[in-house]
Amino acid sequence: MSGLHTLTRRLQRQNGSKIVLLVADGLGGLPLQPGGRTELETASTPHLDQLAARGVLGLSTPVLPGIAPGSGPGHLGLFGYDPLEYDIGRGVLEALGIDFDLGPDDVAIRGNFCTLDSAGQITDRRAGRIASEVGERLCAKLDQITIPGVEVFVRAVKEYRLVIVLRGTGLGGHVQDTDPQATGVPPLDPVGQDAESQATAEVCRQFLEQTRQILVADAPANFLTMRGIARKPAIPDFKEVYGLRSAAVAVYPMYRGLARLVGMDVLDAGQTLDDQMTCLAAAWADYDFFFVHFKYTDSTGEDGDFHAKVARTEELDAAVPRITDLKPDVLLVTGDHSTPAKLKSHSWHPVPVLLAADSCRFDGSREFGEASCLRGGLGQFEAKYLMLQALAHAGRLEKYGA
Amino acid sequence: MSGLHTLTRRLQRQNGSKIVLLVADGLGGLPLQPGGRTELETASTPHLDQLAARGVLGLSTPVLPGIAPGSGPGHLGLFGYDPLEYDIGRGVLEALGIDFDLGPDDVAIRGNFCTLDSAGQITDRRAGRIASEVGERLCAKLDQITIPGVEVFVRAVKEYRLVIVLRGTGLGGHVQDTDPQATGVPPLDPVGQDAESQATAEVCRQFLEQTRQILVADAPANFLTMRGIARKPAIPDFKEVYGLRSAAVAVYPMYRGLARLVGMDVLDAGQTLDDQMTCLAAAWADYDFFFVHFKYTDSTGEDGDFHAKVARTEELDAAVPRITDLKPDVLLVTGDHSTPAKLKSHSWHPVPVLLAADSCRFDGSREFGEASCLRGGLGQFEAKYLMLQALAHAGRLEKYGA
Repeated sequence: MSGLHTLTRRLQRQNGSKIVLLVADGLGGLPLQPGGRTELETASTPHLDQLAARGVLGLSTPVLPGIAPGSGPGHLGLFGYDPLEYDIGRGVLEALGIDFDLGPDDVAIRGNFCTLDSAGQITDRRAGRIASEVGERLCAKLDQITIPGVEVFVRAVKEYRLVIVLRGTGLGGHVQDTDPQATGVPPLDPVGQDAESQATAEVCRQFLEQTRQILVADAPANFLTMRGIARKPAIPDFKEVYGLRSAAVAVYPMYRGLARLVGMDVLDAGQTLDDQMTCLAAAWADYDFFFVHFKYTDSTGEDGDFHAKVARTEELDAAVPRITDLKPDVLLVTGDHSTPAKLKSHSWHPVPVLLAADSCRFDGSREFGEASCLRGGLGQFEAKYLMLQALAHAGRLEKYGA
Repeated sequence: MSGLHTLTRRLQRQNGSKIVLLVADGLGGLPLQPGGRTELETASTPHLDQLAARGVLGLSTPVLPGIAPGSGPGHLGLFGYDPLEYDIGRGVLEALGIDFDLGPDDVAIRGNFCTLDSAGQITDRRAGRIASEVGERLCAKLDQITIPGVEVFVRAVKEYRLVIVLRGTGLGGHVQDTDPQATGVPPLDPVGQDAESQATAEVCRQFLEQTRQILVADAPANFLTMRGIARKPAIPDFKEVYGLRSAAVAVYPMYRGLARLVGMDVLDAGQTLDDQMTCLAAAWADYDFFFVHFKYTDSTGEDGDFHAKVARTEELDAAVPRITDLKPDVLLVTGDHSTPAKLKSHSWHPVPVLLAADSCRFDGSREFGEASCLRGGLGQFEAKYLMLQALAHAGRLEKYGA
């Protein structure tokens, strides 16, 4: 909500304090049986429980009650950007996911290699799920395509998936998918939904025409469809809206990309949680705000593996002392959404939040879990307000009005 | 908020699941003495308590904190329509209350028979509270009125109250009341507040002129005043916004009318709760969503009869197994507002909500009552979000964003 940022722009204050936002992806869970304990409640988390005892807990709603968010909206909310106001298209997210550094005017497209028969009709929307090496080789060929006035980038993602980025001026981001979502029919033509997007559609047509010639002998991957054609959303800069020099300490490209999208510096965080903690300590003097991302509470939830999610939660807990040793003024521990192993997917359930700072009003919590968060002092709130709480507890907001 | 429906239109998913919304009208209450138990807490409700133990509780605010809603806004909120955005005029509500099937362009007017003296001044604003039979006879006479280009319907409500419906094109719904709210003065002229409403006012003037002649010998009911002149609000269709085939199982016309207003099928629900349960079971295969309405928790509250409200709550509880036997995927039990017997009226107090589904995050509740709802996992929320929760727990919403 731009209203929030009008406020933070006006009230922000510099005081040298440090804020750490530790995101355990998909943190919220469900018990397997009525009356049971969730993954987080089952895990032995002595360090998080200690923080809960000196901090304040709550439950955050990532978007709206009942809405299960993807990773994009989930993180935007945590960063204080209303996920209903800032819409991240699929093409953009896919580009972020391969660490592609999108420019402000870039149009990003998710591509799928597909198989066409001699009549030009799709016989396989995934090109026989070609190996990633094949996809990479074909993308290298397509990356050579030139279109006057537009820079074209083609990058492999995995198997039959790729990303196409068009860099030019005046290219709109509202072009319909060319994937007909069916076989036995030809791919659709790209159609722009406004004047600028018609220019984009024309570039797409030229790209597809050249693609058809270049891939003519590459069956089963002899063509491609385009989906999620979108421009990078215009998101105000994190530093500008909060006055925070910020850094992302994340391993996975998607989360690095989301942090880059709001203007954070993306650090070389290594591959493991241990690497991340080392990176955090090394960069401690250079930033005011650190976004640390831990993926495995989500992936184990998606797998439906309750016990693995418990184990990953315990792994995260064990790393907490390496953060508290740095003595952050505010330490936030939360998730971007819930991923209950019971549901094997992202869910709408509100997300546990722990905020530890010297200025907390203690709420009597003794452990970090969904039930204690329900009774916590932060109450239930929309995730987009979390940054205000972080700034306030860090002493980084002036009084509003006299 | 139309934003909510933008979201539900985009995210809705079909999966064959069934949702039941059981509305105990005026459910919320107050203890008679400080520290005492409310009507709901006093009632013995073993079936609802069992649902509470496997579900999740909360408190809903029908409109805004402190605002006591009428039945119209109360139900609109439960159906997911912001009651501050969709205003149901009194004339429309009165027409719904007699099961009149309003068309999209109809203007509905609440009429009161009144007594005029020979100077044309009102001496009794309720025409001596004539018997309902008299009102019906007079309405039948007025129903014969013809006005060029407009269809006119006149229907008795009760005693001196009636409904007038004008059906035509280009008739606005913003015409001031003609009831001066005083005696010793003549009725006011109908005045339209915009161009289209001036056309309506002209039709009203013609109607009133003919009425004056037709009723000349019918004192004390020798004229009428017009109030709550309004058009049916343009409300998006329930099926379209949620993807739910929906049915109302309600006895009272007002609630049947409110359901019809949002596009639900209105079933022949009989006269008793038992009839309603039979109707529900018979229609089970044909719909995704059922709105079941129980009136008597409200009417006993309005009567100020605490014990009768307790007894009616127990009557409702006894019917719950007939719903759970049908195995709905989501069962919601709530009210459209509170009607504490202590206050003998609708009130602003938040309303108990119970949601039972396999995907609930249990909140440790053991009984369904205001105190347990206050500690419930759904928290305190605006009623307009209830449908999102219902859809989510029924697995009927896709993830938002990637």
